[in-house]
Amino acid sequence: MNKVHTEKWPLVDHVVKMESSAIREILKYSSKPGVISFAGGLPAPELFPIDDLRQAFDTVMEKNARAAVQYTVSMGIPQLREIIAQRATDRGTKSEADNIIITSGGQQAIELLARAFISPGDYILTENPTYVGALQAFTYYQAKYAPVEMDDQGMIVDKAEELIKKHNPKVIYTVSNFQNPTGITMSLERRKQLIDVATKYNIPIFDDNPYGDIRFEGEPQPTLKSLGGEAVIAIRTFSKTLAPGLRIGWMNGPKEIIPYFEKVKQCTDLHTSTLGQHIIYEYLAAGKAEGHIEKIKGDYLAKRNTMLEAMREHFPKDVKWTEPEGGLFLWVTLPEHVSTSALLPKAIEQKVAYVHGKPFFPDGTGDNTMRLNFSNATHENLVEGIRRLGVLFKENMQPVA
Amino acid sequence: MNKVHTEKWPLVDHVVKMESSAIREILKYSSKPGVISFAGGLPAPELFPIDDLRQAFDTVMEKNARAAVQYTVSMGIPQLREIIAQRATDRGTKSEADNIIITSGGQQAIELLARAFISPGDYILTENPTYVGALQAFTYYQAKYAPVEMDDQGMIVDKAEELIKKHNPKVIYTVSNFQNPTGITMSLERRKQLIDVATKYNIPIFDDNPYGDIRFEGEPQPTLKSLGGEAVIAIRTFSKTLAPGLRIGWMNGPKEIIPYFEKVKQCTDLHTSTLGQHIIYEYLAAGKAEGHIEKIKGDYLAKRNTMLEAMREHFPKDVKWTEPEGGLFLWVTLPEHVSTSALLPKAIEQKVAYVHGKPFFPDGTGDNTMRLNFSNATHENLVEGIRRLGVLFKENMQPVA
Repeated sequence: MNKVHTEKWPLVDHVVKMESSAIREILKYSSKPGVISFAGGLPAPELFPIDDLRQAFDTVMEKNARAAVQYTVSMGIPQLREIIAQRATDRGTKSEADNIIITSGGQQAIELLARAFISPGDYILTENPTYVGALQAFTYYQAKYAPVEMDDQGMIVDKAEELIKKHNPKVIYTVSNFQNPTGITMSLERRKQLIDVATKYNIPIFDDNPYGDIRFEGEPQPTLKSLGGEAVIAIRTFSKTLAPGLRIGWMNGPKEIIPYFEKVKQCTDLHTSTLGQHIIYEYLAAGKAEGHIEKIKGDYLAKRNTMLEAMREHFPKDVKWTEPEGGLFLWVTLPEHVSTSALLPKAIEQKVAYVHGKPFFPDGTGDNTMRLNFSNATHENLVEGIRRLGVLFKENMQPVA
Repeated sequence: MNKVHTEKWPLVDHVVKMESSAIREILKYSSKPGVISFAGGLPAPELFPIDDLRQAFDTVMEKNARAAVQYTVSMGIPQLREIIAQRATDRGTKSEADNIIITSGGQQAIELLARAFISPGDYILTENPTYVGALQAFTYYQAKYAPVEMDDQGMIVDKAEELIKKHNPKVIYTVSNFQNPTGITMSLERRKQLIDVATKYNIPIFDDNPYGDIRFEGEPQPTLKSLGGEAVIAIRTFSKTLAPGLRIGWMNGPKEIIPYFEKVKQCTDLHTSTLGQHIIYEYLAAGKAEGHIEKIKGDYLAKRNTMLEAMREHFPKDVKWTEPEGGLFLWVTLPEHVSTSALLPKAIEQKVAYVHGKPFFPDGTGDNTMRLNFSNATHENLVEGIRRLGVLFKENMQPVA
């Protein structure tokens, strides 16, 4: 048998060294029998609008079956780009189809951003912590990070400006609404301040905004894109508001920059699933999205409340957490001496899973933090899982003698 | 209005310089009203098995609706990987699910190969000419090329070995069956010889094989993978045998190497459309593929025959062409002084389109060649388009005085 020995295979060094990501671990924990998982970022499956998606598929097949399974252009099908642009316009961001490129989920938009902007050693300004999947994509391109401290108003922009002067970053990457992982939303003042700083130093802002539509409490904030115009490229997705398995996201950016993303998209995978694009177009055109999002909001608010209530009851006094007004996640901070990565195997033993915080921190700190997802569990499991975590915390929060 | 000026945007140099690809031009020509296009690589839309795909979708929705629109793992859904492995085994390549990773079409498999293996300046051994979309993907990673001359048996492996000694390429990329663009199939002797050379120098062979199942004439050749075992990674897709708009392809390679592709796939787009994977699984599980492929073969054979017959009637004597035994393309060589790129605007004026040959040649030659697609036009248009090309050739084949 002919064999090329793997150990001799001429793989790129930084691919060999890539660590298997936290996301992958998440999926492993989530699937173990009996484990209550707060680890994934999965939408509640019982809410997927299956009947309306079937209806949309049937409409596609009756109107457009052959086009819907044929090749299409790299930018995405025109009618989907138009309806997305119209919806953005309706919500305060004047947009046309030429501002929109369809991507295979928000993750691919991040990937295209990295490909188009990052050379080895380039700096990216991010929140500290930030979305681990973005760090994974950026790190492939050997990016360096200028991580900005956060408070309950989001990124502290004064500190961002210091880091900009020091590192001259290529782009700013932010998750401004119900951030993954912390659940924190950037305040209006900080939004304006960030746009001013970005404009002053001529650095594009990429606003990764998968959760913005899922605000179930408090006052909506205008999006960075609606405030910042061409200084901002919005990264959006239907993964959290409709269904992640269709892998349909998009970018909304200046008309001059979109063709560059089109070129890199083309050599990546030619285009995103034509069928998925047609299904989502028909779903949106039938006016189904708004009612569905309302339903999600109600459900996630109730689940967040259940989780918070259980935390108040079961968590020790010196554990702190965020109380997000939307999204899928909240963020727990334990006393500094507690390591959530060291605690994780014990948690799995007790049949409860979370994501430890460290991988979200570009600066390598945060080992006393964890992310909890409240969208994917039942109310009963939310209570029981938090109770198990509470027991674990109490057993492990005594400083080592 | 805040604005970051595009001309100042800090894009990566080689992204700014990327040329809009021949593929994109193809799609433009193909869509002009009245133009008979032999340019695209599009399957015949009238053959798409719409009813069976609808049936497969309904089965998915009844058995697995929520899982089919949820996130899944980066490798692809297990049942699809298993049935693909079983089908490969049945055809002479012993495979298990762990040999298979699902990709977003064959193009993304090429992209993952480039990401995992190519550093700037690395050489790739290819046929000359070769698939232009692969060149586009490789060139993003600043690959260099060792292009190997072809004859009617495919790549001339003796010449390949000379180039291997000279350039020490990282990988060998071949389209061994009904090659895009030439339609040429590698002979059995050359296959064995290529595997021997690759094994001798420990260079993995990537066999991009989208058309292999569409042999409508002559004796089937064993695949490189079935001959070469672990020396070969096969790149496959359902785009040509079922429907390209689902964007489902895969790689079949050694178990030790697949996890590296999994890691790069993950940071690219998390995973390929869950829904598309489920639909194709149910389609295959229902045993629909084989009959459908037979139908495609019959249709494409008849179309190829119509095109060849028209060429014999309408093309001048010193035009040469290949007569492929399968696939979607044939290849036309004009006298050396004729430039098919210069001729293209005149062809569009005459309402017929082709792809000029030069972009397929890593060595920059081939301006007297063109690729013609016979799968996407009606018989009537095949005859009329070839007639128009014949007129054009006769008008433009006199050497300039």
